[in-house]
Amino acid sequence: MADRIEEDPKNIGDNWAPQAWAHLKSVRETSPLIQCITNFVSVDFVANLLISAGASPAMIHSIEEIPDFAPKTHALYINVGTLTPGWIPAMKLAAMLAHDSGRPWVLDPVAAGASGFRLSTCLELLKMRPTVIRGNGSEIMSLFKGSLDDTSKGVDSTHESLDAVEAAKSLAKSSGSIVAISGAVDFITDGHRVVGAKNGVSMLQKITGTGCSVTALIAAFVAIDPSRPFEATASALSVFGVASEIGMNLAKGPASLRMHLIDALYWLDQATLLQRVNIETSGSKSVTREGK
Amino acid sequence: MADRIEEDPKNIGDNWAPQAWAHLKSVRETSPLIQCITNFVSVDFVANLLISAGASPAMIHSIEEIPDFAPKTHALYINVGTLTPGWIPAMKLAAMLAHDSGRPWVLDPVAAGASGFRLSTCLELLKMRPTVIRGNGSEIMSLFKGSLDDTSKGVDSTHESLDAVEAAKSLAKSSGSIVAISGAVDFITDGHRVVGAKNGVSMLQKITGTGCSVTALIAAFVAIDPSRPFEATASALSVFGVASEIGMNLAKGPASLRMHLIDALYWLDQATLLQRVNIETSGSKSVTREGK
Amino acid sequence: MADRIEEDPKNIGDNWAPQAWAHLKSVRETSPLIQCITNFVSVDFVANLLISAGASPAMIHSIEEIPDFAPKTHALYINVGTLTPGWIPAMKLAAMLAHDSGRPWVLDPVAAGASGFRLSTCLELLKMRPTVIRGNGSEIMSLFKGSLDDTSKGVDSTHESLDAVEAAKSLAKSSGSIVAISGAVDFITDGHRVVGAKNGVSMLQKITGTGCSVTALIAAFVAIDPSRPFEATASALSVFGVASEIGMNLAKGPASLRMHLIDALYWLDQATLLQRVNIETSGSKSVTREGK
Repeated sequence: MADRIEEDPKNIGDNWAPQAWAHLKSVRETSPLIQCITNFVSVDFVANLLISAGASPAMIHSIEEIPDFAPKTHALYINVGTLTPGWIPAMKLAAMLAHDSGRPWVLDPVAAGASGFRLSTCLELLKMRPTVIRGNGSEIMSLFKGSLDDTSKGVDSTHESLDAVEAAKSLAKSSGSIVAISGAVDFITDGHRVVGAKNGVSMLQKITGTGCSVTALIAAFVAIDPSRPFEATASALSVFGVASEIGMNLAKGPASLRMHLIDALYWLDQATLLQRVNIETSGSKSVTREGK
Repeated sequence: MADRIEEDPKNIGDNWAPQAWAHLKSVRETSPLIQCITNFVSVDFVANLLISAGASPAMIHSIEEIPDFAPKTHALYINVGTLTPGWIPAMKLAAMLAHDSGRPWVLDPVAAGASGFRLSTCLELLKMRPTVIRGNGSEIMSLFKGSLDDTSKGVDSTHESLDAVEAAKSLAKSSGSIVAISGAVDFITDGHRVVGAKNGVSMLQKITGTGCSVTALIAAFVAIDPSRPFEATASALSVFGVASEIGMNLAKGPASLRMHLIDALYWLDQATLLQRVNIETSGSKSVTREGK
Repeated sequence: MADRIEEDPKNIGDNWAPQAWAHLKSVRETSPLIQCITNFVSVDFVANLLISAGASPAMIHSIEEIPDFAPKTHALYINVGTLTPGWIPAMKLAAMLAHDSGRPWVLDPVAAGASGFRLSTCLELLKMRPTVIRGNGSEIMSLFKGSLDDTSKGVDSTHESLDAVEAAKSLAKSSGSIVAISGAVDFITDGHRVVGAKNGVSMLQKITGTGCSVTALIAAFVAIDPSRPFEATASALSVFGVASEIGMNLAKGPASLRMHLIDALYWLDQATLLQRVNIETSGSKSVTREGK
C-alpha cells in the first residue's frame, strides 16, 4: 500500500491525491464558515460532516439575517430537498449576495425533476450562477433539459451517471458552473475537462443525505480554493469517498456506515489519502469500477 | 431455534411469518416510493429506516408540488408530530389525492390528545379515510373519543395498549381504517379481527421516533399489498420488532440500538424472520409477554 | 478511584457530586415533561438526550396549541438556532406563560451576535426572564453588551469562556437569570456565586448540537428542582460532561462519541457520578484543566 502512489501514474501525473490532501489540510487549518440553507432530513448529517472535515457550518436560513451574516461566511450551500415557497426568497438573496461579492456558492438541486415547482426554483437559482452544481444523473438531466423527469423517483436517480455526462458538459458551458454528477463513478466537468472520481462504496446509496453532505463538503473545499472550483470539487468528492471506504471497514450496515464515515473523515490522514485517492481523466480508461 | 416455527403452530396456522417475509421481500424488490409529510424530529430516522427496508422515501411536503409528485408515489405517510397550521393544507391535499386515486395512506396521529389544534387536525384527516392509523394507546383513545386527553404527556402514552383495544375496534369500524396500537404488544384490528404482534424490545421506548419510523414502514408494506392492509400492517410491525431484537444484541443503549436496528433491518433474512415473527390472534392466549 | 470523593474535599464541602446524582435520580423517577421549541439541526439529538436522561421531551412549537399544552409541562426550553420570524410569537407566548405560571424556562441564545435579527429576538426573550441562559462565551458577551459580535462565526465561540465570566455575572444580575457559559470549563453564575464545571471532553466541540442538548438537559434538571436553578444547572452540565467522558472511552470519533454519550447517560450510575463530578468554586483554584 505504501508505494501505491508510485505504482499508479495517474495520481502523480494529475496530482490529484496530493491536491486532495492539500485541500483537506487547508479546510482543517482555516475552518471556513459555510452557510447552509438546506433540508430538514439531512441537516444534522450535513452539519456533522462539515465539522468533522474541519469546517464551521452555520445553518442560517432566515432572510432577515442574511445581509448581516453573509459577509462573514466563506461559502454558501443551497439544497432544495424540503423546499417550500417560504424558503425561496432567502435562497435567492443569499445566492445573489454570494455571487455579487465573489464568494463561492454551491447548489444541490435535489429531485429537480420531480415537480414543476422544484424545477422552476432550481432554474431560477441557476441564474445566480452557482460556482458548483452537484446532483445525480436524473437531477442534472432535468436542469439541462429544463423539463420534468417523468421517471423521477424523488431523490433516487433513474439515470446512470455516465449517460448524463454530456448533459453535464452542456450545462457547465451554459451556466458557467462546475457540474458534478454522483453515481457509481462521480464525474466532474467544467464543460471541457471531465474527470471521474472513483472512491466510495455502494452502501452510501442506502443512507439518506449522502448527496447533501458531500455537496456541503464541496462548498467547504471551494471556500478555501475559490479560484479552482473544478479541482476543489474533485478533491471533496474523493475525500468523502475515501472516508466512506474506511468507514465501511467497520460498518455493519447503512446506519453504522454513516457514523464510521464521519469518524473516518475526522481522522483521515495524509498517507491514507495519498494511497487511496482515485481520480482519472475520463476517456483515458474504463470508468466503471468493481465494488461500487 | 431452527425448528421453532414447527414448534409454534400459530405461525403456521396463521401464516404470519412467511407472509412477513413475503412482504419484506416485495418491498426490497419493488422499492415503493413513499411520500412522507412528517415531523422535524425523526425525519432522518424515518428516511433511513425506509431505505434500509428497501423502500424509496421522498420527504416532500410543499403543497405546490403535491399534484405533480403524488401520482408517482405508491403510498403516503402523514405524521403530525411538529404540526403547524402551514402544513395542514398540504397534508389534506395529499391525503385527498391518495384517497381519490386509491393509493394507500397511513396516519400517525402523534400526541393527538395534547391540544385542541392537534386533535381537530387529526379528526379532519380522518375524514380522508386513511388506510391505516397507528398510534399509542392514548392517541387512539383520543381519536376514538374525539376529545382531549387531560393526562397527555405529548408523545408518551398514558394508556396501556390493551385498554385501548376496544376503542381501536370501534375507531376501525367507524373510519374504515386498519387501526394499530403500539405498546408492550402491538395490536392490529380491522374492527373485527384483532391480532397481537409481540416482537420488539422495551428499550425502543427510549428512542425518539420509533413510532414514526414503524408507521412509515407500515406505509411501505401497505404500498406493496394495498388490498390487504391488515396483514401488511401486522407484517411491518413484526419486521420492525424483529429488527429491534437483533439490534438489541449489539446495542449498549438507546442510541446504539437505533443504529443497530437500522443495520439489522437492512440485512434481515428469511430464516431469522421465520424463526422470530411472533403474531397471534388476540384472545387465544395471554397477550402480555416477558421482556417487553 | 473508589475513594476519590474523600480525596477531593470540594466535592464533599460543596456537596456537588451527591447533589448531581440526586438531580439525575429525580429526573429518572419523575420524568418531567419538557416542551422544546428548538432548531432543525439538533432536534433529534435534543430529544434523544432528554429521553436517555429519563425526561419526557415534547417538540411542540405551534402557537395554536401552546395554551392547551403548556400547563401540562414542567419546563420549557427555547433555542433560536434556526430562527425565522414565524417562530418568534410562539417562543414569546410560551416563555410568557412559563414565566407567569412560575414554570422554569431555559434559553439557548444560539449565535446571538451573528445578526441584528437574532440579537433583538434574544433580547426580547430576555424580558420574559428565563430561569437559565446557557451559551458560549461569544453568545453571552453579545447578550450582555446588546450588540453584534463582529467576530461571530455563528455557533462557534470566539471568546474563551473565562473572558466572559464577568459579562455573565453582570447579565445574571440584570436579568435575574442563572447564566452558564460553556467552554473548556463551564461556568455557572447567579451574579454573585460562580462555579466551574470541569467534566467533559474536547471532542464535544466536533459534534453539532452538544450545546443545544446540554441546555435541554438543564431544563429537565431545573424542572425537578425549580427553586434551586443554580445548583440544577451545575448538575446538568456535570452529568452531561461525565456522560461524555464515559462515552469517549468507546468513541472512535465525533459521530460515535455522540452515540456513546447518549448510551452512557442512559446507564450512568451513582458510583460513577460520585467519583467523577468535578465542580469547584471559581477562584479557589485554577479553573483550567488538562485534556479539555
